[in-house]
Amino acid sequence: MTLTVVPVPGLPEVAPGADLASLVADGIAMAGIALADGDVVVVASKVVSKAEGRMVTEQPTPGAEAHRLAREVGFRPADVELILHETTTVLRSAPGVLVTETRQGFVCANAGVDRSNVGQEGAALLLPSDSDVWAGRLRDSLTQAFGVDVAVLISDTFGRPFRLGQVNVALGISGMRAVRDYRGQVDADGYTLHGTEIAVADEICSAAELVMNKLDRVPVAVVRGYDYPRGDGSGQDLLREPAQDLFR
Amino acid sequence: MTLTVVPVPGLPEVAPGADLASLVADGIAMAGIALADGDVVVVASKVVSKAEGRMVTEQPTPGAEAHRLAREVGFRPADVELILHETTTVLRSAPGVLVTETRQGFVCANAGVDRSNVGQEGAALLLPSDSDVWAGRLRDSLTQAFGVDVAVLISDTFGRPFRLGQVNVALGISGMRAVRDYRGQVDADGYTLHGTEIAVADEICSAAELVMNKLDRVPVAVVRGYDYPRGDGSGQDLLREPAQDLFR
Repeated sequence: MTLTVVPVPGLPEVAPGADLASLVADGIAMAGIALADGDVVVVASKVVSKAEGRMVTEQPTPGAEAHRLAREVGFRPADVELILHETTTVLRSAPGVLVTETRQGFVCANAGVDRSNVGQEGAALLLPSDSDVWAGRLRDSLTQAFGVDVAVLISDTFGRPFRLGQVNVALGISGMRAVRDYRGQVDADGYTLHGTEIAVADEICSAAELVMNKLDRVPVAVVRGYDYPRGDGSGQDLLREPAQDLFR
Repeated sequence: MTLTVVPVPGLPEVAPGADLASLVADGIAMAGIALADGDVVVVASKVVSKAEGRMVTEQPTPGAEAHRLAREVGFRPADVELILHETTTVLRSAPGVLVTETRQGFVCANAGVDRSNVGQEGAALLLPSDSDVWAGRLRDSLTQAFGVDVAVLISDTFGRPFRLGQVNVALGISGMRAVRDYRGQVDADGYTLHGTEIAVADEICSAAELVMNKLDRVPVAVVRGYDYPRGDGSGQDLLREPAQDLFR
């Protein structure tokens, strides 16, 4: 079956406390999309953070650890302090890069603190506190608005080891499972597949990124035609246990 | 613009030395797709390996290192020997997992040696020797067959640190750049974007994976509607220099 990925442009600037579900529903309707059962609505974490009011405009006072790391990585101490507020573990630090585990359990650069497209000079945007809660809330609203059963993913752009460039991944999930599990299934040759678990929620977010241009504000995309694994998934399902991770 | 991802099913079993370009072209035509300028044709590395004759049916004799690693990871020594043949560096080893850098420079589990869907009991399939060469060859043939300018990606399924599940990435590239580079560009708020390089070749392969079902043999997909960065890219462009990698 053909998969389609439709961009939803033209959302207004999202203010703290805005009714994001209504803005997304209006955007989808104005894009001429008749939302249907089985669609996946992918929403950029940036607009979720804005609705949650995760914009920081005041510079925090850097502590000793922030000063020390700032010298090592070459960031401003106040910026490092802000990153450390959002961090449980600093995994790596080197000139120009700070890889951290965030309070939400995600491993990414600079704890996801973002200064681009935040709508205000000098401001920084933090990751949503709980992307699964936001995904669930948006799904409930879209179900009510359109009378259909859809899945919702909250997406952000992360780097990764070994490979250059960043790709979009899923931070929050509602209405589908994170992973398609082929383990124990039999392939076309009768061979039982071992160890094949595909992170389809991440792949859907990567597909959506291709239409969510960073320069033009397209914070939502609708993915249609993918028979996603039904169930009650979470963005946390995609996080490897630290003790099971060979690259910590 | 809407992105579409169309599966190309029904390729016959690919024999060593098969004319893969013709099989792919026939499959595309039989799927009713009129290939157009700007399409991206994604081909599973598995069928490329089969055409190249990278199937191994004989068990190699394990050396001392293979015996030692086999005890540690719990694989058969001959399987480990086969993996080591394809490996330049063993990055990590632990029960059930061997993370290696392959001769081609990819970091993945078991040097990409694959025992599923290989078409023969007890056989193993190795990664293509040079996926860029294959991508270029397929692109030349498709250009000639259809009279259009397309890009070709050779794709495989890799795990990654920190996040569970596997996603598809690009091993070989022809006709497009691997990465879309936003650095120095100005966002909707006038903020100059720093450090945003999107691995769009990997994202396209992840999108294609969603229609390339592991159980039903769909080794090709056509991605339409993505204005990919023109240029002369390579799968090697996506590989982080070992010295620049904080997680080696």
